[in-house]
Amino acid sequence: MTLPFAVDSSACLEPTLGPDGLPRAAFEEDLAALAATSGRLAKARADGSLPILQLPDRRDDLEAARDLVASLSENCSEIVILGTGGSSLGGQTINALADQGFGPPKGRPKLHFFDNVDPHTFDIFLERTDRSRLGVVAISKSGTTAETLCQTAILLDALRETVDEARLAGHVAVITEPKASPLKALAERFRLPCLDHDPKVGGRFSALSVVGAVPALMAGLDVAALREGAGAVLDAALAAGQPDPEGPAGGAAIAVGLSRLRGVSQSVIMPYVDRLAFFGLWYRQLWAESLGKQGRGTTPIRAMGTVDQHSQVQLYLGGPKDKHYTLLRLATAGTGGRVEPELADDPSLDYLAGRTMGDLLEAEARATGEALIRNGRPTRWFLLDRLDEAVLGGLMMHFELETIYAADLFGVDPFDQPAVEEGKVLTREYLRAGPA
Amino acid sequence: MTLPFAVDSSACLEPTLGPDGLPRAAFEEDLAALAATSGRLAKARADGSLPILQLPDRRDDLEAARDLVASLSENCSEIVILGTGGSSLGGQTINALADQGFGPPKGRPKLHFFDNVDPHTFDIFLERTDRSRLGVVAISKSGTTAETLCQTAILLDALRETVDEARLAGHVAVITEPKASPLKALAERFRLPCLDHDPKVGGRFSALSVVGAVPALMAGLDVAALREGAGAVLDAALAAGQPDPEGPAGGAAIAVGLSRLRGVSQSVIMPYVDRLAFFGLWYRQLWAESLGKQGRGTTPIRAMGTVDQHSQVQLYLGGPKDKHYTLLRLATAGTGGRVEPELADDPSLDYLAGRTMGDLLEAEARATGEALIRNGRPTRWFLLDRLDEAVLGGLMMHFELETIYAADLFGVDPFDQPAVEEGKVLTREYLRAGPA
Repeated sequence: MTLPFAVDSSACLEPTLGPDGLPRAAFEEDLAALAATSGRLAKARADGSLPILQLPDRRDDLEAARDLVASLSENCSEIVILGTGGSSLGGQTINALADQGFGPPKGRPKLHFFDNVDPHTFDIFLERTDRSRLGVVAISKSGTTAETLCQTAILLDALRETVDEARLAGHVAVITEPKASPLKALAERFRLPCLDHDPKVGGRFSALSVVGAVPALMAGLDVAALREGAGAVLDAALAAGQPDPEGPAGGAAIAVGLSRLRGVSQSVIMPYVDRLAFFGLWYRQLWAESLGKQGRGTTPIRAMGTVDQHSQVQLYLGGPKDKHYTLLRLATAGTGGRVEPELADDPSLDYLAGRTMGDLLEAEARATGEALIRNGRPTRWFLLDRLDEAVLGGLMMHFELETIYAADLFGVDPFDQPAVEEGKVLTREYLRAGPA
Repeated sequence: MTLPFAVDSSACLEPTLGPDGLPRAAFEEDLAALAATSGRLAKARADGSLPILQLPDRRDDLEAARDLVASLSENCSEIVILGTGGSSLGGQTINALADQGFGPPKGRPKLHFFDNVDPHTFDIFLERTDRSRLGVVAISKSGTTAETLCQTAILLDALRETVDEARLAGHVAVITEPKASPLKALAERFRLPCLDHDPKVGGRFSALSVVGAVPALMAGLDVAALREGAGAVLDAALAAGQPDPEGPAGGAAIAVGLSRLRGVSQSVIMPYVDRLAFFGLWYRQLWAESLGKQGRGTTPIRAMGTVDQHSQVQLYLGGPKDKHYTLLRLATAGTGGRVEPELADDPSLDYLAGRTMGDLLEAEARATGEALIRNGRPTRWFLLDRLDEAVLGGLMMHFELETIYAADLFGVDPFDQPAVEEGKVLTREYLRAGPA
């Protein structure tokens, strides 16, 4: 499989961007250093010590996932995916290929991703929903996430009012590690179907596992194609020799180099594709939680084109030079509705008359990228010929690897999240003590 | 009317936060300087030279808005609000009080805010929608916004296939400045109802005008209460004497002071309220576009609690000390579904058994705030007893004023956006030249 997209980072480097760019020598030095990381990752892929690198090649986990999805989809017309952070964002990202907010593909259940514990939202949802056709998939790697347990207990209780307890297994399923946990205990008590979350696949790296596959299958998407796209990017990235400057290692070298040498503290990802809105949020967790430690890391920012041209681009062009930009552009020229010339019968609208919405979207993306570059803002392009499961899988693998490479350059462990424990301990203390 | 919320900024200042906080002397000096700004704003409110300050007191514009809403709501069961940036975010923010994504209040039309020009999204929407019951409100202050004109032309054309041209006025309306423009010309050609956008009210400051009132009325919300809440905050902010340290001037002095003296380049707003998700995006435009110029300004970031505890809080606690935090907490203790003790029958879940979802949400917010403060991160609280139109209006006015005060301290004009013109010119060039 050829790589499912093209990357152009030239306008992040000094020769093209000018003095705000990263010096080429610094870039090449970091890129050369990352050959060692590629070697380590290739070894880990071969010996199985880093299971996220096996995910693209796995198919053995899909039969159980398909059975579970078939059973829930038969009994339920609306399915709530419970879970937060990495247990939700991957699924939301993939599901967005099939559902743009106007309902699911025909014959598929409507998916709701509840990743928060706002009682108002839950109350309204339950008021409006036919519980006899309601499904739930509770996802928590550890099986101890407070929000997910609270959501699950409340929905189980609500379902019991309508669905016979013996039939709950047709409505509720769980994805969690095999070890004993409160969520696992609930699954056992109600004999709920349960898929294993690999203990060695962290939540924010789990999109290509069953965690993303279950929502994907519910939406009728092709999980094998998703993984094939990821595999193509992985193969290319781990090929022997100096890493590709336009591959994940190159992206890491640019982000970390700009942070060290040019004071770039923020990394903006800006898809000009509605279906990639959640992809930006998925990346935001991946980058922040993997790198933000020991006082290091940079802030990932999800922007959307063209929307944020009317919100953030004034700051991006006119504010401090503390950001670099990754713009994702899909080939849309000639697609979509056309502006009838007689409806744009105004000399000032000559540029729009006869053009399609896809023409406008592409022109806006190109113009914003060009304006950023002219104003000395490091800008990288991802150019997509199409958007499907393989392209999305490839993008996900690209950014997972870019994050792992960047962790090596920052000198941090991309797989832990030590700082969040303090808040969890305090939450339990406050709840035990009762309302303030 | 008393102020509809309480603010606590103590943990942004040195005495409480420690050495990462803003020195009290610097804070008080900036606050004192802002008394002059308050005086200038009070004068502008009195003499009408800054119409955004009159909006809280206006009611004369609502009758025409109500008539337009009544007519569209009678003919249409789905209404698309076209517009981008400030023409959309205010409406989305207000509408979120009534619609959490599970459909509109009973008997009201379903609103769709289309602020992008992705042809895929438009095509799917049109495929799935009954055009005979479709409504459109096109909002563009200047009447020249390329995206809005493109959207409007395509939807007008689609509607003409189903709705008799003489009846289009019952389906499509326009909000734009009174002067001649391509959008105004379309309105005149099809005799569409048209509300005036005040030429002196910039898009990002227009939420309290008809731009926000039309969607609010469609959703059945109380626009007078929204404006009353805004008025209460405005009255308090412009009262004579040194500005309130917990009012908008105090917030501006903290944000700008931390940026100057403590290297804080990013301002995170984090509501623990689903209904304020769009409020965070509205604020993000307001702050970025008003202040990001001449190399100045800071980056506004919308986070959501508790969701982003599982995505961004590792970075917030463990990453660089380059952010300050505004957490919005609603009194939710005791509300929502309860975790039945028999479903949390596990020693490790003692903290959850018998608690409500609202208990958990409040405890998580308090815990995250406390963890930020313990880790030397400047953190401000907004405490809301309830969330309704008055509270939302008050919050909007607070942040509009905070932005205007901050502009004075940064030395920039909050009402212009000079940098975005370059991209607009390039877009037109590219479209005239045809696909790349």
